[in-house]
Amino acid sequence: MYQARIHITLKPTVNDPQGVTVLSSLHRLGFISADDVRIGKYLMVNINESDRSKAEATVTEMCQKLLANPVIENFQFELEEMATTKVI
Amino acid sequence: MYQARIHITLKPTVNDPQGVTVLSSLHRLGFISADDVRIGKYLMVNINESDRSKAEATVTEMCQKLLANPVIENFQFELEEMATTKVI
Repeated sequence: MYQARIHITLKPTVNDPQGVTVLSSLHRLGFISADDVRIGKYLMVNINESDRSKAEATVTEMCQKLLANPVIENFQFELEEMATTKVI
Repeated sequence: MYQARIHITLKPTVNDPQGVTVLSSLHRLGFISADDVRIGKYLMVNINESDRSKAEATVTEMCQKLLANPVIENFQFELEEMATTKVI
């Protein structure tokens, strides 16, 4: 059992209107030291797979097929092995 | 100059309907090993501040006042010092 922690971010050349809006809100609230805001997604997906390389392949395919938009987004992830707890 | 990488996640006891929807889509696409999906936000904020502890305090206040909803969300962040490039 693995937990994949996936970061999906807009490619650097893609505009981020949500980030621009948040930045102007921060400035209005007095956070003048804020300089640039980019907003992405963070997904935690549990993968019921005992083999690390299989889990990695699965997560990569998930990102390519559903989770990320490869035209405008990049993705990266790390896998962490989870303790499997059995209820007796 | 620091870059704050902020993770905002729903508290474990809060329902995540977006995650449930993504999980059922993954199952429909054949990713039967996917077991649980939680969706959060990932923000990269550049802070124009030379002092690390001031930058930390600023980011914490930003999260509490605007970026996270403290009723249903947790936040955590790491700060990375950025090279300041001067254009000559």
